[in-house]
Amino acid sequence: MSKLLIVGTVAFDAIETPFGKTDKILGGAATYISLSASQFGVKSGIVSVVGGDFPKEYLKKLNDKNINTDGIDIIEDGKTFFWKGKYHNDLNTRDTLITDLNVLADFKPVVPEKFIDTDFLMLGNLHPSVQMDVIKQIPIRPKLVVLDTMNFWMDNTLPELMEVIAKIDVITINDEEARQLSGEYSLVKAAQKIQEMGPKYVVIKKGEHGALLFNDDNVFFAPALPLEEVFDPTGAGDTFAGGFIGHIARTGDISFENMKRAVISGSNLASFCVEKFGTERMENLTYDDIQERLLQFKLLTQFEIELN
Amino acid sequence: MSKLLIVGTVAFDAIETPFGKTDKILGGAATYISLSASQFGVKSGIVSVVGGDFPKEYLKKLNDKNINTDGIDIIEDGKTFFWKGKYHNDLNTRDTLITDLNVLADFKPVVPEKFIDTDFLMLGNLHPSVQMDVIKQIPIRPKLVVLDTMNFWMDNTLPELMEVIAKIDVITINDEEARQLSGEYSLVKAAQKIQEMGPKYVVIKKGEHGALLFNDDNVFFAPALPLEEVFDPTGAGDTFAGGFIGHIARTGDISFENMKRAVISGSNLASFCVEKFGTERMENLTYDDIQERLLQFKLLTQFEIELN
Repeated sequence: MSKLLIVGTVAFDAIETPFGKTDKILGGAATYISLSASQFGVKSGIVSVVGGDFPKEYLKKLNDKNINTDGIDIIEDGKTFFWKGKYHNDLNTRDTLITDLNVLADFKPVVPEKFIDTDFLMLGNLHPSVQMDVIKQIPIRPKLVVLDTMNFWMDNTLPELMEVIAKIDVITINDEEARQLSGEYSLVKAAQKIQEMGPKYVVIKKGEHGALLFNDDNVFFAPALPLEEVFDPTGAGDTFAGGFIGHIARTGDISFENMKRAVISGSNLASFCVEKFGTERMENLTYDDIQERLLQFKLLTQFEIELN
Repeated sequence: MSKLLIVGTVAFDAIETPFGKTDKILGGAATYISLSASQFGVKSGIVSVVGGDFPKEYLKKLNDKNINTDGIDIIEDGKTFFWKGKYHNDLNTRDTLITDLNVLADFKPVVPEKFIDTDFLMLGNLHPSVQMDVIKQIPIRPKLVVLDTMNFWMDNTLPELMEVIAKIDVITINDEEARQLSGEYSLVKAAQKIQEMGPKYVVIKKGEHGALLFNDDNVFFAPALPLEEVFDPTGAGDTFAGGFIGHIARTGDISFENMKRAVISGSNLASFCVEKFGTERMENLTYDDIQERLLQFKLLTQFEIELN
């Protein structure tokens, strides 16, 4: 069984959408990524940090999904990273109301002994110096290293981010971030420029408009599943990344053909994530649910047409 | 060979994009629709109106593509409909600078004798009363009636528009218009409500984000081809409609499976339209070009994945 190491935040989120609001619930990039990837029966572990206020039952929720939490450092006299956000009516844009870094401010990641030889490494959205620290702790290069990042690090820590980008295989960012990072408006050109920075594979996430996968001259597109209702988009991008790396870790196949399936898999998982608040839908998801929805993705995208 | 009747504007456009500007060039919904549909070897004709200032060589351009122009009324002492617009830097939004209706203001459409028995009817974006007038002139209902319209008619002539919508089979509108017409933000719900208004098939155009086809519980998605450069989006929606109805008219097949291909065909044609100013690319397009790009659409969207 492949090993998958996930680095990222484990956090409290408070979310407000047009449909309701929550007080502090389980959140964080590594949480969503690991819950998503856990559907693929891989041996996954998280490297992260939380405070003494983090409920043990949240760790148990992850352990129950066979997610190893030995790498989650618990700072007993510290407080867990907290994010509060409010979505606008279209659910496509949001305001961040509170970002309390707390224990994340001084986070020194330590890869647990049993994940030093991980086959796959997923660097969730986090300070690029932390991501680099983890890369350096793994002596034998994993089969595939995937990076998720965001505009905040481009604005504030670009040199450190560029060093990480030079060392990874796949980058997943959204369309605006791809434009910012490359200086190109056209996503085709943006993907070309980003490939020159290091990653051979560029995944551009367009939210409800789907995701594009670029590698050399190859392009593949996975739509988002059209849903009657989107309840809470929080964690959709991380869930996408978890479905992507989860599929690859399960199959062990890093060909472009298999990455197509991984992008579909990411879209598939993300379509569940947004159906309920926070991690609720991801916690109750079954492999049958995913397989059933995979059929919907096929019906949505597959066509037969003659080529003369 | 199937007959296809196209109703819509034949016009002068003046276009400004970040890449340049044109003075009055050939434009109009029926022009783009017919140039697009002409790739499919159907017997097509236009019902429209122009002024005495409309160059005979423009009519010849259409005739050279086997587009019948008998139904284009020439008002010798009138002026041709004129639209001037300026695109913003992202090419997704534009300002209309001039709309001179001219001869279009008093347009009374007359379906030419040889198209009274048309197999397919494409109602391009135009005053709904004109669209209804054409429907009424055709005694035997065509196999398929497709309507394209826009928010302007929803704002100003909603009762007339609703009467037309009740009589057609397929409606093509963009995402914002679907939301306006239905009062639903979710495109899935919007499509359901619009189907209740009459058309069994709803095509929602999302520009660079592709197009969705809805029919009962069936959904199909055609992406837009990711392009290095979009030069001028003018006419892309009409060209999409022309590729859609052109494919259906060529095959004579109005099944959902074939409509999937028609939506891909529409996206295919639209991807050419935006590569040059105005109708330039459409005038020089060959069937080989289209077939080659169809392969790109397959590579972009098709995947093999096991279903357990």
